[in-house]
Amino acid sequence: MSFDSAPLSEAERFARLRLARADRVGPVSFRQLLDRFGSATRALDALPDLVSRGGAAAYALPSPDRIQAEIDAGAAAGARLIVLGDAVFPPALAAVDPPPPVLWALGDSALLSREAVAVVGARIASAGGQRIARGLSQSLGQAGFVVVSGLARGIDAAAHAGSLETGTVAVLGGGVDDVYPPDNAGLYNQIVERGCVVSESPMGMRAQARDFPRRNRIISGLSRGVIVVEAELRSGSLITARLAGEQGRDVFAVPGSPLDPRSKGPNDLLRQGAILCEGIEDVQRAFETLRYLGEPATEPFDMPAEVDAALIERVAALLSPTPTPRDELARACGAPVAEVAGALLELSLAGRAALLPGGMASL
Amino acid sequence: MSFDSAPLSEAERFARLRLARADRVGPVSFRQLLDRFGSATRALDALPDLVSRGGAAAYALPSPDRIQAEIDAGAAAGARLIVLGDAVFPPALAAVDPPPPVLWALGDSALLSREAVAVVGARIASAGGQRIARGLSQSLGQAGFVVVSGLARGIDAAAHAGSLETGTVAVLGGGVDDVYPPDNAGLYNQIVERGCVVSESPMGMRAQARDFPRRNRIISGLSRGVIVVEAELRSGSLITARLAGEQGRDVFAVPGSPLDPRSKGPNDLLRQGAILCEGIEDVQRAFETLRYLGEPATEPFDMPAEVDAALIERVAALLSPTPTPRDELARACGAPVAEVAGALLELSLAGRAALLPGGMASL
Repeated sequence: MSFDSAPLSEAERFARLRLARADRVGPVSFRQLLDRFGSATRALDALPDLVSRGGAAAYALPSPDRIQAEIDAGAAAGARLIVLGDAVFPPALAAVDPPPPVLWALGDSALLSREAVAVVGARIASAGGQRIARGLSQSLGQAGFVVVSGLARGIDAAAHAGSLETGTVAVLGGGVDDVYPPDNAGLYNQIVERGCVVSESPMGMRAQARDFPRRNRIISGLSRGVIVVEAELRSGSLITARLAGEQGRDVFAVPGSPLDPRSKGPNDLLRQGAILCEGIEDVQRAFETLRYLGEPATEPFDMPAEVDAALIERVAALLSPTPTPRDELARACGAPVAEVAGALLELSLAGRAALLPGGMASL
Repeated sequence: MSFDSAPLSEAERFARLRLARADRVGPVSFRQLLDRFGSATRALDALPDLVSRGGAAAYALPSPDRIQAEIDAGAAAGARLIVLGDAVFPPALAAVDPPPPVLWALGDSALLSREAVAVVGARIASAGGQRIARGLSQSLGQAGFVVVSGLARGIDAAAHAGSLETGTVAVLGGGVDDVYPPDNAGLYNQIVERGCVVSESPMGMRAQARDFPRRNRIISGLSRGVIVVEAELRSGSLITARLAGEQGRDVFAVPGSPLDPRSKGPNDLLRQGAILCEGIEDVQRAFETLRYLGEPATEPFDMPAEVDAALIERVAALLSPTPTPRDELARACGAPVAEVAGALLELSLAGRAALLPGGMASL
């Protein structure tokens, strides 16, 4: 395991950023490579070989210059790089399966280690919904919680505004220097000044639609609970709520009148068992119930140094677009799970498999 | 048991109304007397003796003239008397423990035997709340349900208005000829014409505050489920919801914004496990789940014809203002439950004990 308390060397931190930015390395394989090789430095050495064993042709690691450029851009912006394994990596986020390999933080990164609650919701929010979000964030702040949200219009903006005084964290889809949406530029500047802006993306990257689910998993991952205030069905806020549930965090929903379509999201969450939230008391009552703040669902295990080439092909033949549990694949090929995991890692690095959270894999 | 299918004679129906109107005979003792004596006629014969054995002095049954006057007043108003044991006694209400001994019905009493859902809520309701109540009642009616409510201002009135076309039942605290509140007189007349007005109270009786919980238990007792639309904490609607839960009926709550105090009631019901209701689909989904529509919690058993006088006093000595289960009293005096039940019945008729639902008794 790579989460011991000794501080990481600068070379290893550089290697972790480089590994995180390598082609076909996602959060799942990043974590598995660290587990298997003990350090990103050694994983980078092994990577080209693993890729070719997985059945892919030439593979180029990101150049050290490119990584240095990302670090320099961060330093120029005053941002701080936090890699998985750093002592300051937010503990709640490290417990997520898989955690993001790296984070950039602009502002007061100490906020990331405090107990946090996320407040998220509709972009086109009602005046009442914004009032509720602002009020909830104020009382969460007064109760000692950092408030996490996504700097979107509407509920997110109200949540940040209500917690500027006490501690607010904005998680962005693009780089921490990518101010989006533009009309929240003033709020963004205040958060950089007094709170913290966080992102998994490289400096300078513009947010794409596909970045938001990744962003949402960090919003919930930083938080002990997620409160949804107004959300239409099939909205990003409901994705955040689902991720929170999968991460073992409490999901709260503020009820609303069935006459307002923005109540559909929270009301439906309530139907599915979310905790009804009218105020801070509901959050505190839920938190008094001691809960298990999930370790990763899949225990790391020692992957073999060498995976049999024939096994790699047998595992590849079993994959389909439907996510399949690693254990099931192991049973199907009659091989130990650790070896199948090793085969899957090499296939994923070769672009022939996708590693999914919870020990699942697909084509 | 007195609920066989043979129609009751007119003399027995008269006796049942007379027994229901007798001093110190409430719904619990009414049912127990019927169980013990097999008919109200025989129970009336035995009553003075039971009372004196229970330790009270002179006891006068209501005069036959007084009962005849109630019947005549009902007939003059066009109301129909329904006594427990009549084939037309609403089956859902007969399953309540204890059921009301008698009902007066003005209008189409056939509605009382159809599957019903109650819609209740705040008197001072918001326009939105009234719109929701009216809409829910309309769709309940279209789905074949009779809608039950309490003819109060606000939500109740909207519920009746929405279901006038399809079948609506108003349960009153006073007599069925006691139009209350006066500003619902027009609605009352429409319900008498096209729906049904029901009450446990004698004709001509004005509703008192203490009649409303009794009224509310009939609202829920007639219904398979109760929907609460807007209610402040500690309101009559929440009493109806609690009674519905105790009667084994589904409790539904329409969520609302925490900014409106009228949402506190339904939101709190949701916190306690009520079914979230945004529309008829929620009701139908709940009803698809087959549930046990409670027989009385306490199985009737054969009470002894004679109860030992010493036992009566021993039971009396064990009673306190705190409700105590009959079984516990039986254990405490080392006597069979049936004999203790007999003793409690006589004590209650003597005004020395109160019989409570679920086989409980208190001083």
